[in-house]
Amino acid sequence: MKKIIFDTDPGIDDAMALILAHASQDIEVVGITTTFGNASIENTTRNALYLKQKFGMLAEVAQGVDTPLDQVKTEPATLVHGDNGLGNVEIPDQINAPLSPLVAHDYIVETIKKQPGEITLVAVGRLTNLALAIQQAPEIAQLVKEVIIMGGAFGHNGHTGNLTPFAEANVYGDPLAADIVINADWPVTMVGLDVTQQTLMSNAYLEKLRTNSTKYGQFIHDITRFYAKFYNDDLGLDGFYVHDSSAIMYLIAPEIFTTKRGHIRVITEGAAKGHTLFKNSDRVFPIDEWTHKPKQTIAINVESQIFNQRYFDIVCSN
Amino acid sequence: MKKIIFDTDPGIDDAMALILAHASQDIEVVGITTTFGNASIENTTRNALYLKQKFGMLAEVAQGVDTPLDQVKTEPATLVHGDNGLGNVEIPDQINAPLSPLVAHDYIVETIKKQPGEITLVAVGRLTNLALAIQQAPEIAQLVKEVIIMGGAFGHNGHTGNLTPFAEANVYGDPLAADIVINADWPVTMVGLDVTQQTLMSNAYLEKLRTNSTKYGQFIHDITRFYAKFYNDDLGLDGFYVHDSSAIMYLIAPEIFTTKRGHIRVITEGAAKGHTLFKNSDRVFPIDEWTHKPKQTIAINVESQIFNQRYFDIVCSN
Repeated sequence: MKKIIFDTDPGIDDAMALILAHASQDIEVVGITTTFGNASIENTTRNALYLKQKFGMLAEVAQGVDTPLDQVKTEPATLVHGDNGLGNVEIPDQINAPLSPLVAHDYIVETIKKQPGEITLVAVGRLTNLALAIQQAPEIAQLVKEVIIMGGAFGHNGHTGNLTPFAEANVYGDPLAADIVINADWPVTMVGLDVTQQTLMSNAYLEKLRTNSTKYGQFIHDITRFYAKFYNDDLGLDGFYVHDSSAIMYLIAPEIFTTKRGHIRVITEGAAKGHTLFKNSDRVFPIDEWTHKPKQTIAINVESQIFNQRYFDIVCSN
Repeated sequence: MKKIIFDTDPGIDDAMALILAHASQDIEVVGITTTFGNASIENTTRNALYLKQKFGMLAEVAQGVDTPLDQVKTEPATLVHGDNGLGNVEIPDQINAPLSPLVAHDYIVETIKKQPGEITLVAVGRLTNLALAIQQAPEIAQLVKEVIIMGGAFGHNGHTGNLTPFAEANVYGDPLAADIVINADWPVTMVGLDVTQQTLMSNAYLEKLRTNSTKYGQFIHDITRFYAKFYNDDLGLDGFYVHDSSAIMYLIAPEIFTTKRGHIRVITEGAAKGHTLFKNSDRVFPIDEWTHKPKQTIAINVESQIFNQRYFDIVCSN
């Protein structure tokens, strides 16, 4: 069992990724830390507690901060995820699942220290919580197992951005945090738009999931109606790209992903704010802000048919 | 005859490009405006006057400013071009060719206004002079014929930078000027590393040029010894890439270049300072600093064997 802390802003595809992790026999979700982006921090935390309660998850839930490191607040992505962050499905007013007394970054630090070498951080939102954790306790870099991030866009398969032409939304939302997390001395894998936009879940696929997964099928179908409509209106797609579940799938089935290793920097301001630049050349340059950074891994291809089959099999297994 | 003002920082490959323009029956070099980079403004201006005198050029020479728009001065590239900017060949102390009383950007504005629709600006150094000209007299945008720039790197053929992993030296040297010039409302073609690093002039080629061009062969051979040694030491090449002549060749033989049209932005600060980003997608993004900029042209491929043959034929024709 791979133990993870899932850092997330649920979020429709966040919920689908959490369900995949929860349903998988390979993953134990130890904790869920919330961040802001797809919805406000209040809504993403409420949604995390709702998912925990609804599906009987044992994971602790800890709420994160509500502001990126550069203090530039942006509106939540309600156009994509609905006002409540879960496609406007009905969510009960009263949720009984308990919230951790720790703020997310403290929870991350404490949990990693308690279980050295055991915890994988899987982050599928803005990287604010992870940046605060590593800044506060740099020693966790040596204690974490690995860090898997849904974020970035490196130009493979023509994918360079979604929020801007050259920035993926999670990285754009807190580019300073992203540059800190990616360049910390822990093993990072970036699962960016290069691969997440290779996999499409069609409406027919979701309909099949609805009838085949007793536990999750109807819920996934319901929350994704809003999301699928956004993708259809915006990009003319039948269905939607599979962003956050790609990070969980990378943990379950790394063999279906192709990766590259190199140095990464994040553009933190200006026209290309949130742009991620990957260097895997060994050429020596007169000026090089990449050289002294750790090499990390990016995913550049995925076998998307196998991906969808694995998601289906795992979610329908209970 | 295409009339050009050649904005340049000679510079070894600048001198080779100027010789190509001067030798070509298709081009009239009306003016030479100097910029800093390959050498100091004093040396590049002295070198331009020397080339004018040595080869009997009629072009006026006007000296440019010595500081980029962001006021961040950098050292001249003496490692590439030698202390005197022309590979340390002997240059006489006394040069009799006259210098224009106008500063380069004033010369550019006046010359374009005097010959509306006639002048092509060919810039192969930092874009400081062109930026000052267009800022001072925006009306020249409608009066210039076109603007051809050796600069930038857009990732084709694996070429993303030379001074840094993600920046070409001319753009890095004055990124604010580059963003202004590229996004002004005049037709710009960027001939960047994507194509300039596709063409290599070998030492055997230069030796052949020496024996076949009575007028220029020996001089080109002499100034390029330093340059070829730099390329050999730095990149292990036999010979060197053909940067500045590519901009002139684009004017002479556009048919051997493949191009694309789209929007361009320049990163003006931070880790990726000088990076050029090209957008040719019609997708609508929630945030897009590219949308309201004019579409420009970038060169992405060149038939390099034909290039070298054309350069040879033109330079050996007199």
